[in-house]
Amino acid sequence: MKLAYVGTRYAGWQIQPALPTIQGHLEDRLGRLLREKITVFGAGRTDSGVHALGQVASFTTQRQVPLDGLRRGLNARLPEDIRVLVTGQVADSFHARSDAQGKEYAYRFSRAEVTSPFRAPFVCPVRGRLDLDAMRRGAAGFEGRHDFTSLAPSSLELQDRVRTIRSLRIEEEGDEVVLKVQGDGFLRHMVRTIAGTLLDIARGVREAGEVPRILAARDRRAAGPCAPARGLTLVEVFYAEAGA
Amino acid sequence: MKLAYVGTRYAGWQIQPALPTIQGHLEDRLGRLLREKITVFGAGRTDSGVHALGQVASFTTQRQVPLDGLRRGLNARLPEDIRVLVTGQVADSFHARSDAQGKEYAYRFSRAEVTSPFRAPFVCPVRGRLDLDAMRRGAAGFEGRHDFTSLAPSSLELQDRVRTIRSLRIEEEGDEVVLKVQGDGFLRHMVRTIAGTLLDIARGVREAGEVPRILAARDRRAAGPCAPARGLTLVEVFYAEAGA
Repeated sequence: MKLAYVGTRYAGWQIQPALPTIQGHLEDRLGRLLREKITVFGAGRTDSGVHALGQVASFTTQRQVPLDGLRRGLNARLPEDIRVLVTGQVADSFHARSDAQGKEYAYRFSRAEVTSPFRAPFVCPVRGRLDLDAMRRGAAGFEGRHDFTSLAPSSLELQDRVRTIRSLRIEEEGDEVVLKVQGDGFLRHMVRTIAGTLLDIARGVREAGEVPRILAARDRRAAGPCAPARGLTLVEVFYAEAGA
Repeated sequence: MKLAYVGTRYAGWQIQPALPTIQGHLEDRLGRLLREKITVFGAGRTDSGVHALGQVASFTTQRQVPLDGLRRGLNARLPEDIRVLVTGQVADSFHARSDAQGKEYAYRFSRAEVTSPFRAPFVCPVRGRLDLDAMRRGAAGFEGRHDFTSLAPSSLELQDRVRTIRSLRIEEEGDEVVLKVQGDGFLRHMVRTIAGTLLDIARGVREAGEVPRILAARDRRAAGPCAPARGLTLVEVFYAEAGA
């Protein structure tokens, strides 16, 4: 399934007892629809408040279900802020998370003097002058294959913190400054901490040339703050074949 | 004050006991900020679920308040889905409602097969083919000075139901069909009932040529349904001078 959701009302992707989550809603509605216990695997475990335009999730069912009927049935039962965009059948071996070859995220800052109430759930408001040239030079420093330990929570238990950022572009869309980042995978909080660090650079609090040192430190304290969840959107998940 | 708001969570503009309203929030926050009982007059009494990009509201205070500080102070206290965009001082005689010379509303239909969760609060989803040429011919029939009794609730107690629609355009924005209507004033539900009637025409349920008969009937039953509130946005309020 390809999914879009507004993350504002949810405690993130991952199922948690007594909290509204995307995975929880999907498993509940799928379970009722198929009268079977369903476990849904998502390509990315988005945090509370993070949005998705193209999350991908997979599950296994014993039933034969028409794909279009499944999409319609699920959308009829899900809240309006979670939508199934596409359903498809994949190989039994397919797993939305482990088969993902890459992802694209967008992080949005708003420079509007007054943040539009229509944009507020999707942007991090920022004040003052931003040096976008410095921000772009800093962004270039994150591109490539690096150990991103400095950009993830110090509590992260994962051993392998090496990831490749294929591209990190800074674009302007009206009042908004948008970071568009593609990579083979991202550690928890990694995009938001890159965004927070680049914002420091744009404000002149840090220099663009610091990025290699931040990465080399392999210490969370070397990087800038983790930017708020609301500004982050999982835009797309990439697979080797048209598996999903 | 010029205001923007997302109407989804509110029981409309007009203050009501025990219900969240835009006017209620403004009067409460202004009252606390100015330590004075404040009554706020809005240019348009938007219904529950209707949004605003450019509502205008006025009030009188005994205090001398810096205009920019007032805007900041209010925005700091208001929920994020209500924003004060601009504050200005006007003549004592100014009244946001009675001085308004005209208004612009937009009504949005979405033809997306799956309505984006990011757009759902702002559009009325429609299925099937729409004949936009017929819709445009129907729209032309509403332009001009008419008695709009057929387009307002039959319970409307107002005597004068003559209004002038200066322009009613149908535009396409991606998957969305947008009705943009400007006029000197609008009766309750008038824009939404025009939208519902034009949707009937676009679907071939009614003919574009019926519009003059619908108007001439001066009977609510002659027109189409009142389209859902969520698709409607008050875009702008016009005044003779730069009073607000």
